[in-house]
Formats: sequence, structure tokens, C-alpha cells
Amino acid sequence: MIFASDNWAGAHPLIAERLAKAAGSYTSPYGESDADKAVEDKLSTLFEREVSVFFVATGTAANSISLAATARTASVIFCHSEAHVIHHEGGAVELMTNAGKLVGVGGTAQGKIDPARLVSAMTRYPSTDVHVGQKVALTLSQATEAGTIYTLDEIRALTEIARSEGLKVHMDGARFSNAVAALGCTPAEMTWKSGVDILSLGGTKNGCWCAEAIVCFNKEDAAAIPHLRKRGANLFSKSNFVAQQFQAWLENELWLDLARHANAMAAKLADAVRAAEGVRLAWETGGNQLFIVMSDEKAESLRAAGATFYDWDTPAGMESAIGPNERIRRFITSFATRAEDVEKVAALF
Amino acid sequence: MIFASDNWAGAHPLIAERLAKAAGSYTSPYGESDADKAVEDKLSTLFEREVSVFFVATGTAANSISLAATARTASVIFCHSEAHVIHHEGGAVELMTNAGKLVGVGGTAQGKIDPARLVSAMTRYPSTDVHVGQKVALTLSQATEAGTIYTLDEIRALTEIARSEGLKVHMDGARFSNAVAALGCTPAEMTWKSGVDILSLGGTKNGCWCAEAIVCFNKEDAAAIPHLRKRGANLFSKSNFVAQQFQAWLENELWLDLARHANAMAAKLADAVRAAEGVRLAWETGGNQLFIVMSDEKAESLRAAGATFYDWDTPAGMESAIGPNERIRRFITSFATRAEDVEKVAALF
Amino acid sequence: MIFASDNWAGAHPLIAERLAKAAGSYTSPYGESDADKAVEDKLSTLFEREVSVFFVATGTAANSISLAATARTASVIFCHSEAHVIHHEGGAVELMTNAGKLVGVGGTAQGKIDPARLVSAMTRYPSTDVHVGQKVALTLSQATEAGTIYTLDEIRALTEIARSEGLKVHMDGARFSNAVAALGCTPAEMTWKSGVDILSLGGTKNGCWCAEAIVCFNKEDAAAIPHLRKRGANLFSKSNFVAQQFQAWLENELWLDLARHANAMAAKLADAVRAAEGVRLAWETGGNQLFIVMSDEKAESLRAAGATFYDWDTPAGMESAIGPNERIRRFITSFATRAEDVEKVAALF
Amino acid sequence: MIFASDNWAGAHPLIAERLAKAAGSYTSPYGESDADKAVEDKLSTLFEREVSVFFVATGTAANSISLAATARTASVIFCHSEAHVIHHEGGAVELMTNAGKLVGVGGTAQGKIDPARLVSAMTRYPSTDVHVGQKVALTLSQATEAGTIYTLDEIRALTEIARSEGLKVHMDGARFSNAVAALGCTPAEMTWKSGVDILSLGGTKNGCWCAEAIVCFNKEDAAAIPHLRKRGANLFSKSNFVAQQFQAWLENELWLDLARHANAMAAKLADAVRAAEGVRLAWETGGNQLFIVMSDEKAESLRAAGATFYDWDTPAGMESAIGPNERIRRFITSFATRAEDVEKVAALF
Repeated sequence: MIFASDNWAGAHPLIAERLAKAAGSYTSPYGESDADKAVEDKLSTLFEREVSVFFVATGTAANSISLAATARTASVIFCHSEAHVIHHEGGAVELMTNAGKLVGVGGTAQGKIDPARLVSAMTRYPSTDVHVGQKVALTLSQATEAGTIYTLDEIRALTEIARSEGLKVHMDGARFSNAVAALGCTPAEMTWKSGVDILSLGGTKNGCWCAEAIVCFNKEDAAAIPHLRKRGANLFSKSNFVAQQFQAWLENELWLDLARHANAMAAKLADAVRAAEGVRLAWETGGNQLFIVMSDEKAESLRAAGATFYDWDTPAGMESAIGPNERIRRFITSFATRAEDVEKVAALF
Repeated sequence: MIFASDNWAGAHPLIAERLAKAAGSYTSPYGESDADKAVEDKLSTLFEREVSVFFVATGTAANSISLAATARTASVIFCHSEAHVIHHEGGAVELMTNAGKLVGVGGTAQGKIDPARLVSAMTRYPSTDVHVGQKVALTLSQATEAGTIYTLDEIRALTEIARSEGLKVHMDGARFSNAVAALGCTPAEMTWKSGVDILSLGGTKNGCWCAEAIVCFNKEDAAAIPHLRKRGANLFSKSNFVAQQFQAWLENELWLDLARHANAMAAKLADAVRAAEGVRLAWETGGNQLFIVMSDEKAESLRAAGATFYDWDTPAGMESAIGPNERIRRFITSFATRAEDVEKVAALF
Repeated sequence: MIFASDNWAGAHPLIAERLAKAAGSYTSPYGESDADKAVEDKLSTLFEREVSVFFVATGTAANSISLAATARTASVIFCHSEAHVIHHEGGAVELMTNAGKLVGVGGTAQGKIDPARLVSAMTRYPSTDVHVGQKVALTLSQATEAGTIYTLDEIRALTEIARSEGLKVHMDGARFSNAVAALGCTPAEMTWKSGVDILSLGGTKNGCWCAEAIVCFNKEDAAAIPHLRKRGANLFSKSNFVAQQFQAWLENELWLDLARHANAMAAKLADAVRAAEGVRLAWETGGNQLFIVMSDEKAESLRAAGATFYDWDTPAGMESAIGPNERIRRFITSFATRAEDVEKVAALF
Repeated sequence: MIFASDNWAGAHPLIAERLAKAAGSYTSPYGESDADKAVEDKLSTLFEREVSVFFVATGTAANSISLAATARTASVIFCHSEAHVIHHEGGAVELMTNAGKLVGVGGTAQGKIDPARLVSAMTRYPSTDVHVGQKVALTLSQATEAGTIYTLDEIRALTEIARSEGLKVHMDGARFSNAVAALGCTPAEMTWKSGVDILSLGGTKNGCWCAEAIVCFNKEDAAAIPHLRKRGANLFSKSNFVAQQFQAWLENELWLDLARHANAMAAKLADAVRAAEGVRLAWETGGNQLFIVMSDEKAESLRAAGATFYDWDTPAGMESAIGPNERIRRFITSFATRAEDVEKVAALF
């Protein structure tokens, strides 16, 4: 009953098989193999546009190097105040952007940036003022850290504000697949058709061992990335091992099937929460993450029964909705979550 | 007939199998799984000392983050003038060390630092002079970029000079296994018993898909590395996938068998070079790299027959030994090199 | 009628004379002259403790290099959300701290950090969590950017919180003299006796041409600064020209006289505001800065008459207190402000 | 008898007077005063071209920020192996260029880069190879660290090589005035007419207290500098104090008179060396620096008599020309050197 995170699972059997099969062959290193190129082609097809693709080792690398591609001197990058990039990259964004600054923009407690507050935040960084640095980018997480999913209209509202002032737009797609599956839209619609310039595309949380890619929708944004990636110590020699994972992941829409499965498991768990008396959803989510308000006793009893999940800080403004003995708990499902585990944990609610 | 580099191969079957087997299980992420711990234990046994182990994505990451662990403000790090760290890390060492400086110290054309020149180079960086920065470390490559292998005495001569002035010593062990196999010594003898503080231990070039580790022989040197690695975008979530590779690699001394095989293939090829008339060794080497002087016609005919290998810049001082129509060519063998391929290419000499 | 900023003035005649007198003599460069040493001695006397003093070129340098002295990998530094260090150093703090992160802690609209919010902010950065970076320092501005002045008790409340978790405390003293003059305390009481480790001591805004110093109250905090300053391109060769300014500034408490004068001019102007009908103080301040609510017409008429001052963003939470046609205007007095100019502008209120 | 360095003197009386006179007036801060603009205009006239001028605090700042203006990701910058920028900026160039790398190119022992070796060094950094970084600039010192002065033809030979591959050319003009005076050419001829893009123009060593400027000959090279300077903690608030120094320095060619005086004093001292028996010039120089071979006894007796000068490391390749009891000593003259001091020291030779 592992609901701690979607990075606790191993790899999907089809990914593992593919790797095993490829182990015996030789390929050019450093991203120049046929398989690397094949993944770029497949992603170009998937995104309905010629894209540039760069494999990196971690989601942190994808985010920080993507943002570095937008950087100038004294860069200012806007994100949600609770975004992963501002709280959980351990200084990587600042390092890779040559000492840039992330500015947290308020929004809903559930992880979405408020357009009015983005406008207001941007106002404080006029291009003519050397003291405040240079605003260069907006980054959105889709799905958000709070498990919610921006609608296409919500994305567009934000990207239009950013682009109107010349900012680049990055999307942190660590859970990109789950968001696409939840919205039922196309990858193109959720990205460049909605104003996104660069995407961190995460495969690791959705069935791969280690498959993260930076996807650029314009050639000029991609120009610096080969150097940024090498300097960022993220250029794999045997990049074929990532390419093979992505090949299997993209084949027959495996990525979408896996995301749909994870989302379905989360929905099943949410239904159980709604049906139970002692627990409730802190807010509605749409992908593979649930935020459940639960008493300490209940949480303890679940853990004693073998369930893993994290306690979550109560977002500012929600304090009054959480009882003295209660706390928000984060449950995440993945490609590997089994219906029986959902049922087992649900039975304990 | 792939002799281009030891990173062109895939993974050894035992590594691939291990990965496939582990794919179905759950583990704690970010280096905290049982398998991560098990590898640390195994390496402590191998090195006859309690070591701290940090997996990273690339050899560049291992080198740059290791050196970052030795950094202070305005760091100066000594290396051979032709070392990988100074010429081929694409700025990663400078970035991770917070804008440190690598100082190339001359030595033999065959990649070994000359102790007298190290002394002389260090003299120019007195601790009392704020203008020159702070000397913090010496880094050695073993095997060297020129395929040669330091003897234990040679290592000790250099590390003693460095340590006498308080410098830390790092060893770039991208081809650590080949060097150990060539010297017939223990891993402990080649590292901390000879004055090495931090090791970049490379598994990727010797049978793994992606298995690089920083090995610290003292706790205090390891203290900053968790933060440096995360900031360096090199903290894997599913670190189990590296742990599994290292597990298989360390089991029954697979790593040593694979290195011995690669070395034997190189020796076999060297014998063929010595026996042939039209080609000759540029210098003697000891592991899995050969530097062969060959005419352009010969090189072309080998390539036409399907052999891959790189042209190599003639080291300073050796110009007169290379004919007008000749050039040095680098041949590298690996765990995957087959005797028949060596024979095939040898037949063309 | 210059009330735009205290950096619009030139230098006090005694400072200028001193410089003229020193021009003809030779001294050792790079901070090693007798005059440099003499200033350090005088400041040790002033602060009732042996201090280490480092001249730098700008307040930005003093702040960013002071904070760099507290930095580790992936540093997190707490400050008021509206502090100069987070909004107006143009990326210098991030650069000098090797890509550190400033975290704005809320507080009063008038620039003071709220202790409870500091506690709460610090909670989110546990030392055991590599993903969030390492919290290393708290920085306070005294006087604050909003013209208010922390009481000694308020300073101690904050420094105790910071120090209880091992954080260093820095004070941005760009207007240190005005704060000391306003509180009527000693420099020692306002700094190390209240838990401050490192001070940016500003002379430029209070009578000097260019005299900024980092003052360390403990030797160990000072150890890295010579290298940080040189690397930060802030080591003057003819440091004697700063030393001479500080000599004159410290002689016969000139610094305190000048600050008292500036404060008195601000108090005089505040009295005029209180007496006038069409303008009012946005909040009470204590040094040489005033924040005056004024209609656009009034502001325009003052400017037409030759007064200079800046418009100020309405702090969050104060919006309802400012009328639709009104705005907050910042007036700053200095050592050079003449009573007649205060009277002239006051007559226009 | 101060011959230690040209930064031991104070300021020229005309500079000091100008500062004293300006002390009483108000000006806009941060480089936007009329005086700042006036200096830019005067320098545009001097250089026969519209130039962009940025005051900074130190020669280190001028060099490191100039080079930062040429930087891209993983920058590689070529300089003489003994250049100030590679040996004596204490990490500032690396920091400001976002962790760039300086590559020392051999040349004459007397500080001039050899064109053939520049070509050869550049060959190792092909644009297509992500592993080696990106070559972005060449930097020349004029006068050189060894006191020699490039002829215009020598400058052009090097800048043509650099520009043919798209590199920017920077000139470290810490002793620009002395070089112009020595060559008898115009400032324009020695810079942009000879292929220089950005100049570090030093006033401090030639009569000012603190007057260093970055001079850009093309607008596009200047675009990033305001941000680089602010981020580099080198944007003076009371920049008027630098502007006033430069105003006086440029008036009636004071700068050239002072440089001619310093050069004449050096020439007079060189004549004395040639006439003396116990000392000799290590090599011929052309500006205000002399390198004199002198026995330890002689050096000691001069020092005992009150002369200051530095010992100098024997350049590689010159060892055999220096006796066992001898050493090279560097003597520098300045605007403030008096003929009688030259005569006094000469009498001791």
C-alpha cells in the first residue's frame, strides 16, 4: 500500500524488457544515437510540431536547465509560491540560471497562480530598472504540486500575461501524462498551442526508471541547451538507455495508458474517501494526487497496517478548516498501483 | 569493430537482468533505499574502510561534484594539462565549484603529472595572497587520458606534495577498474592508502548503463555532497536503478572480470600492432586504451572495413615522431569487445 | 529641495578636505595601509570590541559579500519581504552567495519582520531535507526600507530565533548612523550586544563620497571575506581613499552629528506634515525617511516648484487607507539638507 | 623612493581639487548625473567614436565585467599565460562570467601572446564540440604585465585571428595611458581601429584615487553591462565622485601628461641601469615598468636605503640568464615619481 510518491515504484515491464533487449548493442554516445533521434521524431509527431529534445537525469535538471535556457543576467522567474521549483530543487535553479531569482506569486491554496497577482508581481520588475534584475520567464506546474490541473483556458490566461512582456513560458511536467489524461486534451493543446515554450517532460514518475526530457517548441530556445546540459553535468554518455525507455513509453501510447491507470486509481481512492466518514478530501484534484484530511489516530492506524503516505503542510488560509487533531495527508498513485491496494487502504478509512 | 570508446557499448547481460528483476519492486527514493545502503556496504568492504557513496548521473557529475566538495572561495585545483577535467567537462567543474579555476600542470606527454612541476605550480599560489585565489585540491586521472597508469609510488609522490600543503586529493576513476586490473593491486591501495581522499568511481564504461559514484574516504569530505549533488541536479529519485546496477557489478567481482577482459583485448590488439609493419604504438599503455600511429590511408581502409576509432591530437613534444602522412589514433576496448573483432581489425594492419 | 535620496548629495566638507590632504602621500595598497588599520582600530573602539573591517565599493557589495560569508551550498537567507537585499541588489546577493536564495518573510507593512512569521518560515527549511537547501542567515535592515527603526528588544527577539537554529545574523546598516541617532543607543548595543554577527556599515549616505564597510564581530565570520571581496571585484587598490573618508567621518563623532542633523531635518518636515491639511504621514518613522500620503496634484505642484522625491508603492494591506487620487511619496533628508529647504517645501504642503 | 607599484601614490592635485569642489553639489545617483554623461561625451571625442562608458570600482571589476559581457554558457577566454586576468583577479573573472574558463596561451616571456600559439590554442575549442565549452573572447593587456607594449601591428595580428572565429576582443588597459604615450598613437588607433571591442580603461594607476571604466566601442556589446555591473556589486550610487575624477583627468590631456611623466621617469631609471655595472635590464620595456636583474645584496642595500620594489618570478625559459645570487626586480614609476627619487635610487646601483 505505497502511496508515498509515484517515484517509489520501479519500472514498467515493457520498459524493463526494452532495456534488456537493447543492452547488447552498440550506439553512438552523448545523445547522438539513432534511438535518441527516433525519440525526437516520435515526440515531434506527438506534439504535432518539430521539437528539440534533450534527455537529462532528473526532474530537477529538466526544470533548472529549461529555466537556464531563458536566463539573462540577474534573471527573475515567476512561479507559484508553493511550486516545486522554488521549494524543492535544492538550489539547482539558482545555480543553473547563473544565480537567478525565483519569485513566488500567490494564487489559490491549491497550487494555481492567480493571473491578477502575476500581473501585479511583474509590475515590480520594470525592464528599465537595473536594481531589480531582469524578468525572463514564467514557470507553471501541470499537474500542480497540490494535485490540481490547470484548464487550457487557465494556462492561456497566464501565458498571455507573460508573453505580453516578452517572458518565456516553461511548464514543469513532472506529471505531464497525468494532466493530459485528466484533461483529455492533446499534448500540443496543453503546451505550445496554449503558449508554452519549453516543457520538462517527466517519464520517471510514470513508468520509467529514469527518463526525463527537456522539450523545446522553438529552435532558438533550444540553442543554448546542449551547453547548459553538459555544464550542468547532465549529458549521459550512454544516452541510449534513456532513449530506449522513451521508445517503449511512447509506443502504443503506453504513457497515456499508464497515466490513465494512475488517475483511475486516484479516482477510486477519492470515491472511497467521499464514502467514508472519518476522512475527507482537503480539496478536489484531478490527476494522481489526493490530499486527504485525516486525524492522527486514523493516520497512525493506516501506517500500522502498512500504508505509506506523507503529511502535508496546511496551506495558508486553510488553517481554520483543519481540526486540532487533524492534518492533511498526501496520497499518490502511480502506474504500479494495484486496485486491491486501494481497496485495502479504503477499507481502513 | 567498435574501438571508438568504451561508452559505445550497452550494458552487460548480468546488469540488464538485475534491472529487469528489480523493476517490479518499490523502494524509498533519493538514495535512501536498502539497495543504496547495500552498495555502500559492499564498497566499504571492497575499499577496506567505511566509505560514503553518492550516485550521480555522469562522470562529469562525479568529477565536478567531488571537486566541489573541496572548494572554497576562488578555488584553484591542479590537474594534468591534458586532463579530462580541464578539457572535456564543458564548464561543469567551474560551475559546481562556484567558479573555481583548474590549473593545468605539465608532465609527460602520456598524461602523468610531473611532481617537480606540481611543486612549482603550487608555489605560485601562496595562501597569503588574496589575488591568486585559494589552492584546494589536486586531481589525478587513473587510468590517465593517455591510457597510461600511475604506479602506486607515482600516486604517492603526487599526493604527498598536495597533502603537505593541505590540498585534498581527488582521483578521476572513469576507468578505475581497468587501472586496478592492470596494476594488480587492491582498490584500497590505489586510493586512500596512497593518499586519495575522494574518488570518482565509474561503472558506465565498464559494463553498466549508467552507474557513477562519488566515493569519499572520510566523513568530513562527504558532508557537503548531499547538497552539492541536489544543487547539481544529480540526485536520482529512483536511485534504486543505479544501486541495482552496482549490486550486479560488484557481485562475484564482475567489475574486475570485465576490466580484465577489456585489458586483455587491448593487450591482444597491442600485440598485433607490434607484429604489424605499417602501424606502431605511439607509447606504451596499460589498461584498455591504445594509441596507434597509423597513416591516413591505413586509417581510411580500416574505417572502410567498419572499424571505428578516433584520431588523436599529437601531444606537444611528440611532433617529430609522427610522419607527415601519419596520425595518432585512439583505440579503446571494453567489456563487450570480442576477440574476433580484435582479430579482424588486426588482420587489416 | 532634494528629498529624492540621501545618495544625491556630494561629500561633507571635512571629508573632502581630508581627501585633498591625503592625496599627496604614498601608502600600501589593497587595504594594508596604516590608515586602513587606523580605521579598524577606531571602529573597534566605537563598537567596544575587536572588529574586522573590510572596505567595499557599494552597499550592494557590503550586503552581498557579508551574506556570502555566511553561505554554504544552496543557502537560504531570510529577510523582510520588502527588504533592499531581496528587491534591489540586482542579483548581487545571489551571485556572491554562489546562487543562494533569499526568502522574504512577512511582517508589518512598515518593514519590520514579524518574529512569529520568521519562526514559521524557518520551519519549512529543516536541516535534514536536502531538497530545500540550507538555511544559513537572517538579515535585518536598520533603519528599515520603510523608514522605521527596530527597537533593541525587537532586534533581540529576531536574532534569538535565528541563532537558536544556528543561523548567522547580518544587519544592513546603509542608514546605520540614522538608526543609532534615533535610538540614542550605542553602536555596540544595536549590533553584537543584540545578536548581530556581521554589519554593513554605510558611510556614503551619511556624508562620504564612497565609504562602505563590512564589520565582523567575530574573527571566524571574517575568515572568508578577503577572498570573497577580491572575487567580488571589490578590493580597492588605493583603499587609502576610503580609509581617509572614514577617518574624518569617525573623528569627533562627525558621523553621529551628521545623522542627527538628517534626523532633525526629517522631524522638522514631519512636524510640517502633521500641521498641514492636505498631506499626512503614511506611518510614523524614526530616522531620516518620511512616507507622506499626498494627492497627485499636490505632488505635481511640489515638483513644479523644484522638489525631488519618489513615489512609493502602497504596501499590501494599506490599499484602503490611500485614496484614489493619492499616493505615498518618500522624502529623505541627509547631512546636506538645509532647514530652509525643509521650510520651503513645507510651505507648499 | 617608492617603485613598488603605481597604485601606492595618492591622487594628483588637480583630481583632488576637482573632488573638493564638487563635494557640495547634488547629482542624480547611479551613473545618471550630468557629469557621468559628460565623461562619456569626452571619451567619445577622445576615441573618435560614440562609446558607452561604465564606471566600476576596480581594475578587477573592469576586466571581469568586460569579459562577462562576452560570455555565453561554459565560456572559454584566451589570454597570455602570465596575464593579470588569469593569475591575479582572485576568481573574479570566473565568477562574473558565470563560471567561465581562462586559457593561458603561451608567447614571449615578456608578456606578448604569440599569434601562432593563439591559433593553435583556439583549434582545440571547435564550436561543434559541447565538451570543450564555447570560445568567446581574447583579452590582451596593453601595456603587458611584463612592461612591454604591443605595436599596433602586433595587436592587429592577434585581433584578426580572434575575430575570424567570432571572438570578441578585450583590452586590459590598466596602464592604457602609458601604452598610448609610449606608442605615440591615438587611443582610437590602439583600440577599435586595431580590432578591440571592449576596453578596461584605468585611471587609478595614473593619477586618480579610484577611476576605472569599461569602454565599449559597440552598443550591442554594452547591452548587458548595466545588469552585469549591478549584479557585480559595482554600481556606485555617488558615481559623480568618479565622474569628477575623470573630468579632471581628461581635461587638457592631463592623463597623457601624467603618463608621459611616468614613462620619462622609467626611461631615466633605465638609462641609469644601463650605465651601472652591477645591475642590468632583464628585458626592454616601453612604458612605466622596468624589470631589473639585481643581486640579493644590491636589492637589500637599496631597500635599506628606503627603496620599495617587488621581486619578480623568473619567466620560464629565462632561468639560465639569471645568476644564482640574482633575481629580477620590478620597478614601477608613476605620475607622482620625482626625478630626485630616481636619481637617488640610481646612485645606489
